[in-house]
Amino acid sequence: MYNAGDIRVEDVPEPTIQEPTDAIIRVTYACVCGSDLHPYHSLEETPEGRRMGHEAIGVVEQIGSDVARLSVGDTVIVPFAWSDNTCSFCRDGVTTSCVHGGFFDGASSATQAEKLLVPQADGTAVVIPEGTDESLMPSLLTLSDVYLTGYHAAHKGGVEPGKTVVVIGDGAVGLSAVLAAKQLGAETIILMGRHEDRTTLGREFGATHVVPERGEEGIAKVLGITGGEGAHVVLEAVGHMPAYEQAYGIVRPGGTISRVGVPQYEDAPVGFASLFGKNATLTGGPATVRAYLEAALPQVLDGTIDPGRVFDRELPLDEIAEAYRLMDSREALKVLIRP
Amino acid sequence: MYNAGDIRVEDVPEPTIQEPTDAIIRVTYACVCGSDLHPYHSLEETPEGRRMGHEAIGVVEQIGSDVARLSVGDTVIVPFAWSDNTCSFCRDGVTTSCVHGGFFDGASSATQAEKLLVPQADGTAVVIPEGTDESLMPSLLTLSDVYLTGYHAAHKGGVEPGKTVVVIGDGAVGLSAVLAAKQLGAETIILMGRHEDRTTLGREFGATHVVPERGEEGIAKVLGITGGEGAHVVLEAVGHMPAYEQAYGIVRPGGTISRVGVPQYEDAPVGFASLFGKNATLTGGPATVRAYLEAALPQVLDGTIDPGRVFDRELPLDEIAEAYRLMDSREALKVLIRP
Repeated sequence: MYNAGDIRVEDVPEPTIQEPTDAIIRVTYACVCGSDLHPYHSLEETPEGRRMGHEAIGVVEQIGSDVARLSVGDTVIVPFAWSDNTCSFCRDGVTTSCVHGGFFDGASSATQAEKLLVPQADGTAVVIPEGTDESLMPSLLTLSDVYLTGYHAAHKGGVEPGKTVVVIGDGAVGLSAVLAAKQLGAETIILMGRHEDRTTLGREFGATHVVPERGEEGIAKVLGITGGEGAHVVLEAVGHMPAYEQAYGIVRPGGTISRVGVPQYEDAPVGFASLFGKNATLTGGPATVRAYLEAALPQVLDGTIDPGRVFDRELPLDEIAEAYRLMDSREALKVLIRP
Repeated sequence: MYNAGDIRVEDVPEPTIQEPTDAIIRVTYACVCGSDLHPYHSLEETPEGRRMGHEAIGVVEQIGSDVARLSVGDTVIVPFAWSDNTCSFCRDGVTTSCVHGGFFDGASSATQAEKLLVPQADGTAVVIPEGTDESLMPSLLTLSDVYLTGYHAAHKGGVEPGKTVVVIGDGAVGLSAVLAAKQLGAETIILMGRHEDRTTLGREFGATHVVPERGEEGIAKVLGITGGEGAHVVLEAVGHMPAYEQAYGIVRPGGTISRVGVPQYEDAPVGFASLFGKNATLTGGPATVRAYLEAALPQVLDGTIDPGRVFDRELPLDEIAEAYRLMDSREALKVLIRP
């Protein structure tokens, strides 16, 4: 990406092993993330270009001398953040804060490409069992970010059986949050979104109610559905201030707002009139995908969940500029890329 | 209180039962709260005066026709907020959001007085067993607010055995938070405060470290003590922005900031650079004292905890203006009032 809206596919030098903990994979599945649309709207002119993409499945082509858990030829899922999976924060499950960690986006290595350098490969990549059906690959790809980001929201929000959950946002992360809330046993799942094709998938994923209204109107609607009490858990999958304001308007006293939409603001209301007065909890952050990946993998393999349904288009890497355009114009929910 | 710094003791009409759920108590123990100092600094001229105080022990003198759990002559603890203890929010433990609830401060009824009207008396007041030794009354009085506010911070923050906890603020609430964190099994308790007589009591309550430095210096000191990792839980017992900034500077990735200092701000940093990036959780609010009171009462009666040690002075009600002055000038930590 050279500028807002300016996506080019170019030949660059092949990546090479830099550290003994690196691996190089040939990317077989990648995709465009909702968060890729932020620079697509706002990137300033960048003469050297910015490499894009942070979700991938691929085949290991080369490993550094310290890589012990991966072998050349393994098919692996690569989460959007690398991590050693052994440091104190990783052991706590906060893999996105790994002391040797980092994020693919904007880094020298990115996944909307034919080849990808994976740092901390042993800690980062998770092997997909040999012989796994190709039809499962889109769902497995969602374990690199989108589904497990929705799951992170639900998990951090404390979703459990009997809870009333509101999901703000009907993008791929919001729909994934619906699916995750359902998996965790939520009784009532209210999806706030206004795109009917998306909310239809949301209902199939487990939403019991859809509220297309926003702002004060949307808040009133949710309060109505919850008998005036509000939601135990609000999963905020947008990242803009109106969604945040909506969240504290509908959270029940003592409830939790869990954010996974990357906040496009730094300051926000947290005082007596918003969070404090009703003992509301604010949580969330970059999804610790790696910490959830091994538990989610068998759920996809045995068909318990099919989060890959968020992909409604597929394009070759050469046409990735069109993928951005389709997602930006909301003609596509999420586009699968085949390098 | 008629104005900032203007405290007067005046005769007012005796309270009378207004609702069948009311009770009237003769106040035997009251006190001045750190939060009373906010209007003491900033109240604008109020010709009709503002009644003050929200912590009390007293003897039931009169009950409304619907009051069933209390009898005339009972000695009771009255928390700073009244609640029916039966509504949906009370059953969740969020008694400060009771649908029939309210706060004594600033209301027509307040505890720095000889008599107190207690709304929702059955839900609100908790009986102290007959024959309880008078020497325990100061500790029992802390169950109306200060100790259980510290406990609320620790409980909402998820303090548990093995955790590293930082308490910001060496006022009576901060010291109570130290005692509560110790009760909940915290391994390391770092008290940030600079008043040596207070931090000495903090050490006796369970603090393992005292950090007098503030701001960047204080953050560096705490990071040093925690091996560069930060604290699992930060209990913020001040309510001003510098304390909040300190809190997100020292919280460990994936950790929790729990606030009980009433925030003197509405907006605060919560974005990628403060809370979101490190998956920090922000929680807390007005302490749901009533929800904890029945469990804490036997702990005081059997001597497990002695939170009444935060009282370092005692004055008759007539001299309450001096009590405010002593606390404001930090000559006293917390003043017990005997009406």
